[in-house]
Amino acid sequence: MTINIGILTVSDRATAGIYEDISGKAIIELLQTYISSEWKPIYQVIPDDRETIESSLVQMVDEQGCSLLITTGGTGPAPRDVTPEATETVCEKMLPGFGELMRSVSLKYVPTAILSRQTAGIRGRALVVNLPGKPKSIKECLEAVFPAIPYCIDLIGGPYLECDTNVIQVFRPKS
Amino acid sequence: MTINIGILTVSDRATAGIYEDISGKAIIELLQTYISSEWKPIYQVIPDDRETIESSLVQMVDEQGCSLLITTGGTGPAPRDVTPEATETVCEKMLPGFGELMRSVSLKYVPTAILSRQTAGIRGRALVVNLPGKPKSIKECLEAVFPAIPYCIDLIGGPYLECDTNVIQVFRPKS
Amino acid sequence: MTINIGILTVSDRATAGIYEDISGKAIIELLQTYISSEWKPIYQVIPDDRETIESSLVQMVDEQGCSLLITTGGTGPAPRDVTPEATETVCEKMLPGFGELMRSVSLKYVPTAILSRQTAGIRGRALVVNLPGKPKSIKECLEAVFPAIPYCIDLIGGPYLECDTNVIQVFRPKS
Repeated sequence: MTINIGILTVSDRATAGIYEDISGKAIIELLQTYISSEWKPIYQVIPDDRETIESSLVQMVDEQGCSLLITTGGTGPAPRDVTPEATETVCEKMLPGFGELMRSVSLKYVPTAILSRQTAGIRGRALVVNLPGKPKSIKECLEAVFPAIPYCIDLIGGPYLECDTNVIQVFRPKS
Repeated sequence: MTINIGILTVSDRATAGIYEDISGKAIIELLQTYISSEWKPIYQVIPDDRETIESSLVQMVDEQGCSLLITTGGTGPAPRDVTPEATETVCEKMLPGFGELMRSVSLKYVPTAILSRQTAGIRGRALVVNLPGKPKSIKECLEAVFPAIPYCIDLIGGPYLECDTNVIQVFRPKS
Repeated sequence: MTINIGILTVSDRATAGIYEDISGKAIIELLQTYISSEWKPIYQVIPDDRETIESSLVQMVDEQGCSLLITTGGTGPAPRDVTPEATETVCEKMLPGFGELMRSVSLKYVPTAILSRQTAGIRGRALVVNLPGKPKSIKECLEAVFPAIPYCIDLIGGPYLECDTNVIQVFRPKS
């Protein structure tokens, strides 16, 4: 059975076609190198509007059956940046360790990493992870947290994600 | 006067007797090596049920007069893992630094450390600290945060905990 | 146009004149070495009372037009320490990365850094940052987070802060 993975780009400007959504596409390409199980990207580009983000997240999890949902954009301090708030609203459970690790990894590159407010949470059997919006940060952040993602999906009753160990070292503790 | 310290194991399986509570016992043994003041463990094993956890925490602090209360278990992303939520509900004040430090220490061993949601908080004159459930992680996490615990208990009006400096270096800043 | 920067010392004892407010003054002195734009400190010393803190924060942002507001004190676990709670109440958006970085920097000096609950947030066009109360920690914490502050103020529509690059390396990513 194919695993559905949501990629949600949150950006007023990408939605308006002012620039191309490089970040969302970069996420899809990275996941293609990481995951060897059969999977299908469910991809959407939406504006930085809290209600729109919330309803897209809900729909991708509840209706389209995504087991993993990765957002990009809307995590900064600007007034229109509301992705973390939308994520927290639709999730039953938050995982602060994702944001902490991503910020500490990004801090090696730029001191403004502390302005990133990204987080992660659980809705039903889906893991929702915010990535920052800047294309440059996508790889460093996803690479840092991805090793914990397949086991997290196991724990919440989702599908078993097989990964390419030549590309990414995922970890499942022996129970 | 004897100091009461609560050790609360939160685990459906340990409660049902499916396995032995190794983690709760490991906490008691570690505290026995750390603390030289006279103290008494108040030990309980309960299921992963939010209301049960909340009422046990309240009872151990308000009725049994625990100055320190250490939980183990229920901090992961699974649906039954609700110890951090229960802790937050009964505490007046949260201390995010405990969870941050424990996750960053555990990350040296396993990338799935970011799935741990443990936190710490204050209820009245008691400090409540969540430890993860896995026996392996107990020592690394408790050892990391314990040096700050006696001073924290001083600050909230609890008893003065004397510790064995050959085993653990607790720290009290000169005011 | 002069930039207004609030420095809010939260301390029962400094308010009562029991000791001098060394921390608030240290913040002003540090900012004078960092910032080359014209700016004016709006300085106040108030007790550890949640409503007083909240109304001072609101007044300094909404009425006195502060673009940056730095608090010191009231971030510990003691019953009277309520600065982070007051900050969260008056802010529309929280920036957990500030507290995480300050705690991880302070941990290099003292294990009790995990007891510090300081955070940062956005109210309107102002950035509010909590620093700890101890004079010793002021410099290490402010130095750690300041490089991200001018760009954060840019993002929320505040004034452009010029800084002395011989003293502090602020960072603005090329967009």
